[in-house]
Amino acid sequence: EDPLTLKAVNTIRVLAADMVQEANSGHPGAPMGCAPIAFELYTQFMSYSPSDPQWPGRDRFILSNGHACALQYIMLHLTGHSLSMDDLKSFRKVDSMTPGHPENFVTPGIEVSTGPLGQGLANAVGLAIAEKHMAATYNKEGFDLVDNYTYVLCGDGCLQEGVTSEASSLAGHLGLGKLILLYDDNQITIDGETDLSFTEDVLKRYEAYGWHTSSVADGTNLKDLNKKIEAARKVTNKPSIIKVTTVIGFGSVNQGKEKVHGAPLGADDVRQVKEKFGFDPDQSFVVPDDVRDVFTSCAEAGEQARKEWHAMLAKYKEAHPDLGAEFERRIAGKLPEGWADGLPVYKVGDAAKASRFTSGLALNALAAKLPEMVGGSADLTPSNLTALKETGDFQKDTPEGRYLRFGVREHGMAAITNGIFCYGGYRPFCATFLNFISYASGAVRLSALSRMGVLYIMTHDSIGLGEDGPTHQPIETLALCRATPNMHTWRPADGNEVSGAYYSAMESYNTPSVLALSRQNLPVLEGSSMEKVKKGGYVLKEYGEGDDLDIIIASTGSEVCICVDTAKLLAEAGKKVRIVSMPCLEIYDEQPEAYKLECFPEGVPVMSVEALGIEGWHKYAHAPFGLIRFGSSGKGPDVYKKFGITPDNLKVQAEKVIAFYPKGQAPSLVKRPQLDFVRYNEHGH
Amino acid sequence: EDPLTLKAVNTIRVLAADMVQEANSGHPGAPMGCAPIAFELYTQFMSYSPSDPQWPGRDRFILSNGHACALQYIMLHLTGHSLSMDDLKSFRKVDSMTPGHPENFVTPGIEVSTGPLGQGLANAVGLAIAEKHMAATYNKEGFDLVDNYTYVLCGDGCLQEGVTSEASSLAGHLGLGKLILLYDDNQITIDGETDLSFTEDVLKRYEAYGWHTSSVADGTNLKDLNKKIEAARKVTNKPSIIKVTTVIGFGSVNQGKEKVHGAPLGADDVRQVKEKFGFDPDQSFVVPDDVRDVFTSCAEAGEQARKEWHAMLAKYKEAHPDLGAEFERRIAGKLPEGWADGLPVYKVGDAAKASRFTSGLALNALAAKLPEMVGGSADLTPSNLTALKETGDFQKDTPEGRYLRFGVREHGMAAITNGIFCYGGYRPFCATFLNFISYASGAVRLSALSRMGVLYIMTHDSIGLGEDGPTHQPIETLALCRATPNMHTWRPADGNEVSGAYYSAMESYNTPSVLALSRQNLPVLEGSSMEKVKKGGYVLKEYGEGDDLDIIIASTGSEVCICVDTAKLLAEAGKKVRIVSMPCLEIYDEQPEAYKLECFPEGVPVMSVEALGIEGWHKYAHAPFGLIRFGSSGKGPDVYKKFGITPDNLKVQAEKVIAFYPKGQAPSLVKRPQLDFVRYNEHGH
Ligand SMILES: [Ca+2]
Ligand SMILES: [Ca+2]
Repeated sequence: EDPLTLKAVNTIRVLAADMVQEANSGHPGAPMGCAPIAFELYTQFMSYSPSDPQWPGRDRFILSNGHACALQYIMLHLTGHSLSMDDLKSFRKVDSMTPGHPENFVTPGIEVSTGPLGQGLANAVGLAIAEKHMAATYNKEGFDLVDNYTYVLCGDGCLQEGVTSEASSLAGHLGLGKLILLYDDNQITIDGETDLSFTEDVLKRYEAYGWHTSSVADGTNLKDLNKKIEAARKVTNKPSIIKVTTVIGFGSVNQGKEKVHGAPLGADDVRQVKEKFGFDPDQSFVVPDDVRDVFTSCAEAGEQARKEWHAMLAKYKEAHPDLGAEFERRIAGKLPEGWADGLPVYKVGDAAKASRFTSGLALNALAAKLPEMVGGSADLTPSNLTALKETGDFQKDTPEGRYLRFGVREHGMAAITNGIFCYGGYRPFCATFLNFISYASGAVRLSALSRMGVLYIMTHDSIGLGEDGPTHQPIETLALCRATPNMHTWRPADGNEVSGAYYSAMESYNTPSVLALSRQNLPVLEGSSMEKVKKGGYVLKEYGEGDDLDIIIASTGSEVCICVDTAKLLAEAGKKVRIVSMPCLEIYDEQPEAYKLECFPEGVPVMSVEALGIEGWHKYAHAPFGLIRFGSSGKGPDVYKKFGITPDNLKVQAEKVIAFYPKGQAPSLVKRPQLDFVRYNEHGH
Repeated sequence: EDPLTLKAVNTIRVLAADMVQEANSGHPGAPMGCAPIAFELYTQFMSYSPSDPQWPGRDRFILSNGHACALQYIMLHLTGHSLSMDDLKSFRKVDSMTPGHPENFVTPGIEVSTGPLGQGLANAVGLAIAEKHMAATYNKEGFDLVDNYTYVLCGDGCLQEGVTSEASSLAGHLGLGKLILLYDDNQITIDGETDLSFTEDVLKRYEAYGWHTSSVADGTNLKDLNKKIEAARKVTNKPSIIKVTTVIGFGSVNQGKEKVHGAPLGADDVRQVKEKFGFDPDQSFVVPDDVRDVFTSCAEAGEQARKEWHAMLAKYKEAHPDLGAEFERRIAGKLPEGWADGLPVYKVGDAAKASRFTSGLALNALAAKLPEMVGGSADLTPSNLTALKETGDFQKDTPEGRYLRFGVREHGMAAITNGIFCYGGYRPFCATFLNFISYASGAVRLSALSRMGVLYIMTHDSIGLGEDGPTHQPIETLALCRATPNMHTWRPADGNEVSGAYYSAMESYNTPSVLALSRQNLPVLEGSSMEKVKKGGYVLKEYGEGDDLDIIIASTGSEVCICVDTAKLLAEAGKKVRIVSMPCLEIYDEQPEAYKLECFPEGVPVMSVEALGIEGWHKYAHAPFGLIRFGSSGKGPDVYKKFGITPDNLKVQAEKVIAFYPKGQAPSLVKRPQLDFVRYNEHGH
């Protein structure tokens, strides 16, 4: 190799050793082994703009093996992104710009948060789908406005995870020709050599998925790397995987061993590495000037490309003013005027409809105005009712379609949806039965952590689904969603609340929303409205004579109408009952205490009713009612009856609650000591 | 085909059509298409005993596409298992023996609960591991005590799920020669044809995993089916997949279409099917006598095999009395005398150790006495500290080993662990970081639903893991585990509580236990003991003068010692503070109210402290403290400080709680109305 090139590659290795040593924690092995791959991508192939890391025309780079992030931080620093040498020195320290795994909301130039293995590669499939669809939507003769590659680096860990199997099979099916996966085959895992557990033929598997495959036998051979990446770029009808055999911890005395995977090399070995590579062992965090020039000139080329792209965009807007404006609006993440105008509103007496049905209406009303809404179902379209009337399928040969056939791949679906979101200009949705969001939990949590306003349309949301039985009936699922920070869990009670939930979900650009929807029909409720749900919970209606409430029944979704019937029975028996509908507990949690006391006045006991588990309801309810076991197979109404979620039984339970407390003396659960919780600061920390 | 054979196969098809029609709900398509496969397995290959469905020598059959369970129920009925014709007529009705998906705890002859796609196949990998290991452990010259095949039937849905990719890759690595997968390739999914989303080359993928592959082009060709199954049985060093091309809903006017997948055929079509197959269209639920004889004679052969097996076992016990007794004990699911004697006990002043470390000691103490403990980690052995000193790895050529190298495959790991448990005679464990239990949620929930006493050893259980940051730090995870019915979530505070948690976990044969364990060191606490944790929560110790408590601090795991230091600070400031350690909230929930009032006397405010999310704590705490956002990357102590989980800050928070309530007047959260919750009855319903 050219000596300066070699020096540049070794600079990356030495910086990685320094960073992990300084942090006294982290993973030096993969950065040192993969330095040539990163060098080749950042200097020979990728287009990026350090001054505007969000430039829409950039190539995307995803480090799926996020533990190797020292490598990514080093590349961002060397190429002139806003990561200083001091930032590299603060690696893995609290509130630094260089956390222990890449966090998109902390570090400019990081596309997605990675570290949980497999997610990055599956996200990359989403990024490549997003690129292909956006190109099909906006590119015009002479205007290749959208035209970027998605590069992913991953290790064997990512390839063992099922989420990448799901996403990779779909990527092959969809023929995502601009997706290029570099597989760091270092033959080492945490437990030891990969042959302890991973002896499959990876490339043959990817061939079976329909990918183009190649390999680089010596991962330090830059020419071979270059050749194989170039060849992969030319294969435009298939995604590509390049297996690159590397030596983990290249340069260390322990290179090739598990030892260099997840711990600092130690001061002596770091000195040894520096001496071996011709660096001064007494100096740390050094970038030779000639090496810095190499990267600076690459970055300058990127800045030039960005300028040319903006010039193209300006001309595009002249030639195609409507499309140009729409493109800019989408990239800015802004909703257009009147976007919500089509959301349906219902009145009492309209035909009862399942909330999955009114969800389908709301989704289509929005999709008609919002081309950024793309998505699909994990092979449950006729059940989830997520088909888009506006559009056909996104398939290999119909990339302009907005409807995705994810197949029975819930985890891959959610991770791909995250990837589509983080491309920019999208508000994607995905769908399955609520119970099977648990298959996707690994990715769903990252929607929340990484601040992606995706929509999870989750139908068949309780024992009300009936015959499919307890393997399909969620119990603990809403407790999980509600306990996940930065995630809104909606369980609307009728069509108006469904429309309100969609409204809120679309307004929450940085918060994912889970919509839990019924299989069974629900009447339009007296007192519901799109407006009222904005506070997460509200007084729906009161039943009975007089001013003094005997009990408040708080409920969500398909049980609210049952609680209304319960209230009517109680009213006939002389009780005064208030129904509080609480479609989104997390938004309700954020309301001021005074508002909560309006809903739940002091002294009045609260019973909650939800046809799922009761965990989490003790916050507001003196007596939560629901299931404390798994459900049961049978017709929906029979299962409700079995578990006592009927007006007759709920009346009996409510009477127990009323009898338990001397009238007006139930303790307030709303008035609680206010502790000092730590929230995010303006730097994303 | 022989006419009687054809009639027998068609009887299965007609019964399936009848069942779904009668239920007015269900999936007729797969049973009708797969009837020849089931016929061939149950009459030509499988050994089973209808009079003792749990006979250890039986071949295992797993219906991974559980929605096709009408087929399995029909086979159980025809072969003389205790499922009557009336049971078939009650398909999908509440409290019937024939629920909408197979439930192992309801229906004799069902090995595992399936329906959530992919689980059954991954379970089957566990069953095959269990067989191979048990055979290696107990079989002796002349005594093939353990010698059965595991057959799985699955559809394309199962093969799209990542969990099967993970499990199948491992199965190939392990060379599980007695695992035979029949893939019902009917080219139909719920959304339509499989080519909407699933165009990979499945057999090539399985070849890449190291499986033996074959195919049956016409799934009605019994001779070809027989030949391919026979060939698969003879391949003893690799698992086998046989792709069987079938016609979904074979016999229906809509055969081959999505329409027959998940809805009744309709009365007219059912008549048409019966006429086509030579049955009386006016009769339903009919088994011709000659057909019944076919199955009865097969079942008799199974009964004979069972008798011979028991005779062999009797001789085995004479020849190998110790092994024989141990084998019988394991199969009976009994723990031996003195099994817990080796569990370590710690005293105040012993060196502080991470609970993952004391977990490793407890695990090894138990494993030394309990050969039924097998398990491993998802490639985090050095972090989870789950290595077994007693034994080497279970690998292809060392099947006697008890330690499993699962690879980075959390979902597959959990599903395989479930499979090992349901083989009988095992108490398996598996391990990863607590946060990544979410990758495995789909299988973890089934451990609980299907009543499998598996151990989830989950380390790095909070922000205390430090530098790896928020992608690795669980927040919502314990809320999920606690909200899952029939699952015990342990978060022990020191070594004694760890030993107590293991004790409880082993005693809970039908309840899985999650052990959440710290990365960081924890001191041995004054007041802790193995005995006390049996109630799930207990008064650890009080600090300060006088009798009147100012506050109770309830906490778990690594925060208990911090709360003790907080209590000491408060005591110095003149407060009287009680610390309640609550290592298992679910077990605590089950204690009588009187006991709870001993821990949490009326009038005293409770603050809870846990370095995770606060959801779920409102049940017992007036003021739950913890995180309301995701965590942060940094050194563990720095992250604790950032989030205020330090004695100094907790003292400030506790003072707010004390100040909020007039002394002695905090409302009791323990005394609540008791509602009538539905529990399981003796029939498993
Ligand atoms: Ca939430
Ligand atoms: Ca639980």
